[in-house]
Amino acid sequence: MAAAGEASKFSEEAYAYPMTGGDGPNSYAKNSTLQRGAGDAAKELLNEAAEKLDIDILSSSNTFHIADLGCSVGPNTFFAVENIIEAVKFKFQNQGLNSQIPEFQVFFNDHTQNDFNMLFRSFSQNRQYYAAGVPGSFYGRLFPDASVHFFHSSYALQWLSRVPKEVVDKNSPAWNKGRIHYSNSTDEVVRAYEAQHAEDMECFLNARAQEIADGGVTVLLIPGRPNGTPHSHPVGNLSFQLIGSCLMEMARKGVVSEEKVDAFNIPVYAMTPEELEAAVEGNGRFSLEKMETLPHVSTHGTVSVTQLVVSHLRAALEGRITQQFGEEIVDELFESYLKKLEEQPSILATGTAIIFLVVLKRKAN
Amino acid sequence: MAAAGEASKFSEEAYAYPMTGGDGPNSYAKNSTLQRGAGDAAKELLNEAAEKLDIDILSSSNTFHIADLGCSVGPNTFFAVENIIEAVKFKFQNQGLNSQIPEFQVFFNDHTQNDFNMLFRSFSQNRQYYAAGVPGSFYGRLFPDASVHFFHSSYALQWLSRVPKEVVDKNSPAWNKGRIHYSNSTDEVVRAYEAQHAEDMECFLNARAQEIADGGVTVLLIPGRPNGTPHSHPVGNLSFQLIGSCLMEMARKGVVSEEKVDAFNIPVYAMTPEELEAAVEGNGRFSLEKMETLPHVSTHGTVSVTQLVVSHLRAALEGRITQQFGEEIVDELFESYLKKLEEQPSILATGTAIIFLVVLKRKAN
Repeated sequence: MAAAGEASKFSEEAYAYPMTGGDGPNSYAKNSTLQRGAGDAAKELLNEAAEKLDIDILSSSNTFHIADLGCSVGPNTFFAVENIIEAVKFKFQNQGLNSQIPEFQVFFNDHTQNDFNMLFRSFSQNRQYYAAGVPGSFYGRLFPDASVHFFHSSYALQWLSRVPKEVVDKNSPAWNKGRIHYSNSTDEVVRAYEAQHAEDMECFLNARAQEIADGGVTVLLIPGRPNGTPHSHPVGNLSFQLIGSCLMEMARKGVVSEEKVDAFNIPVYAMTPEELEAAVEGNGRFSLEKMETLPHVSTHGTVSVTQLVVSHLRAALEGRITQQFGEEIVDELFESYLKKLEEQPSILATGTAIIFLVVLKRKAN
Repeated sequence: MAAAGEASKFSEEAYAYPMTGGDGPNSYAKNSTLQRGAGDAAKELLNEAAEKLDIDILSSSNTFHIADLGCSVGPNTFFAVENIIEAVKFKFQNQGLNSQIPEFQVFFNDHTQNDFNMLFRSFSQNRQYYAAGVPGSFYGRLFPDASVHFFHSSYALQWLSRVPKEVVDKNSPAWNKGRIHYSNSTDEVVRAYEAQHAEDMECFLNARAQEIADGGVTVLLIPGRPNGTPHSHPVGNLSFQLIGSCLMEMARKGVVSEEKVDAFNIPVYAMTPEELEAAVEGNGRFSLEKMETLPHVSTHGTVSVTQLVVSHLRAALEGRITQQFGEEIVDELFESYLKKLEEQPSILATGTAIIFLVVLKRKAN
């Protein structure tokens, strides 16, 4: 079966840096309110997407299959899935098909290194769906042909499948020496990231085009940058640059080795709406039913925004940083990062941040 | 959706004592060769079971769904699944349906407390199927209606869904004071275990009858006892009794509290072929296509059988014992157990051990 084999060409090791698991103070579960803000804003979008489902979507089955790609450990994935189920049920009711409301089976996907044990232990006993975990990269095949009716992916597609090889190759003109991200780097490094992103989007859309059932929909929430703005603008990219400068400072002090900083890159890419459209067009098998751009809204309670940004960044990066530099430097690194932010709150203020809300529908064969 | 809700009536806590995870020397992964011996013996059975599949099994889908119930962390589950896929492919080829060989999606099920992270990290990159993990008790619903074509469960159905409440209730005539298993206990305790087993089998078969696709098959490998033999005979039961006597000795020495021993029971039940037949008949929705009884064969290499028995028992029980008595007593307990076995190798020699190999087929609606 060539299809399942395809996944193996993606080395899990290359990109398998999970969000921080467990439920400690630095865990992803406790530090994903920014993502949840977007999720709430997207609830209406899920209704619109469900409206676009073919009404005979279940012609060959009485189970509606939902997959959340890049689910992490919860709880945002649970809110998203519940909203999708509500939207699909509403679609059926609205069409007078109350008696045909299907059963739901939900596939929670993330990297093999994700903390699925924690995800599974967070499942509600009263959930109204059958649940399964699917480990593996969403840049490869994860599901059988034509088997998923509703794909969802929120805050995941900004992660590349891997660090582009050239940027950690000393002998390449794209070697990213002294930096950990493309957004403040040379044209060669930027091009290497752009090429990786284009290849990844092609793989993502190819895999989904095969896996999605006829008449099914795909909803994507992607943090990115506005058309025509430079890579140095997005606030997320500024954060990575700042982390990079903290690491270089620690290298100068001898706390970490400079070689290790040179070999460390964050495989996150801020795409534009145009780049997404081009990928969809290049793939050719989806129609772009909707694309909306929202400003990135942070929902914060009593903690300061700065602290919140640091917490989010730490939840996202701690695994990678620990793997590269060891656990012992993590606290110092993020303290130094927070200090810089508190001293110059304007560092991130120039940054932009947008989220695209995208609905794709598989074209008829 | 009542179906998914049903699962919630089973308290996960009540039975969620997983096999020892990880891959250390006492882990299940390194101590399941006895189970694998039976798996090899059962390969032929899987071929026979596949033969019994309706040939139009996939009328409504091009994916063949397999579920392994009580999969633990591998590797035995992988061998079983590969054998099933081979057998199903052979069936298609044999019928001249080479071009219609389906894709396979495999659901690996075990308790929520199972180490799914380890299971997922053990997946072969070259596997010829799509894989998903499904956490939850197989005594409740796990899958949508009529969605699974081939159920498999090996060395799992001897575990009850929970310790019968009465046996840890001081005020019940079935209080199992000073013992940790029913097999050397009073009639009241035996009846409590028997009743729990009957209820569990009813739940298991009810759930599977709803989940299995028309024309699908269920293969069960169950360690049990021969018809007409007493509960005190199976070698597994003798092991539990011996562990119980070691615990009581430790209680007398003050190493563990006697109250904790009284509150500790092992929810494992050795059923007979007759009990299984009665459960299938009571359920009424499966035909018993085959039941074969094999002697329990141990496949051992260079380690002594005694050591092997201890290792297996430890892998199966360590989680429960740690939870009840604390980690610090585990080594002492199993050393004392091993010593008793070495001093009197005949202790287990009187025991019997059989495995049933069972093929069930869903009756037409």
